[in-house]
Amino acid sequence: VSTRGGEPGDYASRLLSGDRLALARVISKFENRDRDSGEVLRGIFQKTGRARVWGITGPPGAGKSTLVDQMVRRLRSRGLQVAVVAIDPSSPFTGGAILGDRIRMQDHSSDPGVFIRSLGTRGKQGGLSHATLETVLALDAAGYDVVLVETAGVGQTELEVLGLAQLVLVVLVPESGDSVQMMKAGLLEIADLFVVNKSDRPDADRLVQHLSGVLDLGTPGRRRPEVLKSQATAGTGVDELVSHLLQLASEDDPERRRRNREFLKSEVLHILTERLQNSVRQAFETSSGIDILSQLESRQMDPITAADLLAGS
Amino acid sequence: VSTRGGEPGDYASRLLSGDRLALARVISKFENRDRDSGEVLRGIFQKTGRARVWGITGPPGAGKSTLVDQMVRRLRSRGLQVAVVAIDPSSPFTGGAILGDRIRMQDHSSDPGVFIRSLGTRGKQGGLSHATLETVLALDAAGYDVVLVETAGVGQTELEVLGLAQLVLVVLVPESGDSVQMMKAGLLEIADLFVVNKSDRPDADRLVQHLSGVLDLGTPGRRRPEVLKSQATAGTGVDELVSHLLQLASEDDPERRRRNREFLKSEVLHILTERLQNSVRQAFETSSGIDILSQLESRQMDPITAADLLAGS
Repeated sequence: VSTRGGEPGDYASRLLSGDRLALARVISKFENRDRDSGEVLRGIFQKTGRARVWGITGPPGAGKSTLVDQMVRRLRSRGLQVAVVAIDPSSPFTGGAILGDRIRMQDHSSDPGVFIRSLGTRGKQGGLSHATLETVLALDAAGYDVVLVETAGVGQTELEVLGLAQLVLVVLVPESGDSVQMMKAGLLEIADLFVVNKSDRPDADRLVQHLSGVLDLGTPGRRRPEVLKSQATAGTGVDELVSHLLQLASEDDPERRRRNREFLKSEVLHILTERLQNSVRQAFETSSGIDILSQLESRQMDPITAADLLAGS
Repeated sequence: VSTRGGEPGDYASRLLSGDRLALARVISKFENRDRDSGEVLRGIFQKTGRARVWGITGPPGAGKSTLVDQMVRRLRSRGLQVAVVAIDPSSPFTGGAILGDRIRMQDHSSDPGVFIRSLGTRGKQGGLSHATLETVLALDAAGYDVVLVETAGVGQTELEVLGLAQLVLVVLVPESGDSVQMMKAGLLEIADLFVVNKSDRPDADRLVQHLSGVLDLGTPGRRRPEVLKSQATAGTGVDELVSHLLQLASEDDPERRRRNREFLKSEVLHILTERLQNSVRQAFETSSGIDILSQLESRQMDPITAADLLAGS
């Protein structure tokens, strides 16, 4: 009989044995940056590395959540266990949509082969991307075959996280407008597949052609991403999309190996950055730290010198 | 006669002597995280600490840029030099608006008392907020009396930066909708003043009342933010808004002193984090780093142990 709470080792072993409640609590630990989250990570890490991790992004209104919902269904019908991580940047102005998504996804709540979680930590620098990486590891260790990381693609954090997914799907709609804008933001550099959703709308084919033309110009050292069409509300084109992603995932690709390594490097860097931030915050509470701060305030010391002093202490 | 490029000390002294081109180049250095940006910062830091730094946020369509434009005019007519920093999270899907803003603000391009800059660095963790802090310091050192930091308020970076501004103005419109959403995101914790823009629209007064009711519930240890009204396109209410902000800025406030200290702490932390990130990336290029990475890939080592090893090296 498991007790409430418990040791980090308990959480890890319960997660590995398929306990969904333990999985949910581990993710909360990662999201809240709990003190014992490092120990939990250590306990599950060996079981990671098997999940396919796909990022999904696109402008608001592109129908991402409907498409993700349909993708979950198709992946389930192939016998695969699927987790969805929705990244919510905790915006004061855009948070509503993700809440709506979560409610919609409740259709899957009775299916033990589906796990859905929104993440929206704010606060510490890098907190959200750190929590996202570790949540992906937790879902991977828990045995989910595919982890879909859905973002609205609106900020530094989300693009950072997308850059570490094994494959990135970009969802567009005919009215998304200016694809020059999209290129400017470097989305072309991380996209592995484009899908033009709401393909029944006018101009859908024109967007496909325009995008294909841009992609024909080439992405150095990379496979040219395909441009597919879907109509998620009717379920059209989703099976082809899922097949294509599974096919890409099964192929050996130096770029994907590189992203897997970047994912691991990034996790190590996040751990070290978090330690640094904690120790610097503590140092500012000591008498010498308070002295440094008051010298900064009076401009008798500059921040570079302060950094040197704190690094040496 | 100044040459192109030059030593960090040249940039700093040219900036301090009022050279706008040098200021623009210094900001680019900060944005690009150039190697000599630390030296430039050291050269200008002593002249900082005088500017009023105000954050401005609000949902898309609230009329922020029109309001900022009007605020710039009113501040100029009081003889104050004004800089605007527009934070663009380099979103692939929302970048357009800021470009539009920049074009609109060209009205001020012939006025040497106004300086406008958009920032949109992506890439390294914390890169955009670091660049923003240092840009604020550069504008402060260059003698701008007021620095307006405008964000669309959509992500972790923007909220982090807003939390370090001396005063935060939140712009809403009647159709902004659910203010519960706003509270959830912790905007109430950092807002010093609300303005309901487009106050000629129906429901403007209802929003003012609703918001006032929420604010009456109190924010512990903080002054209750006022709720003003404006109609930026007609210029109505902007003078009152600017007067109110200048009044708040002239008062001694423990919360503002706390934010000033947090700003300085955050700058030091950014410097140390950047150093850490650079040294870890370098460490992963060495033979022992490559060995650690391959053990991570094969799951023979976990990220915590890898972090311990890299921290010790």
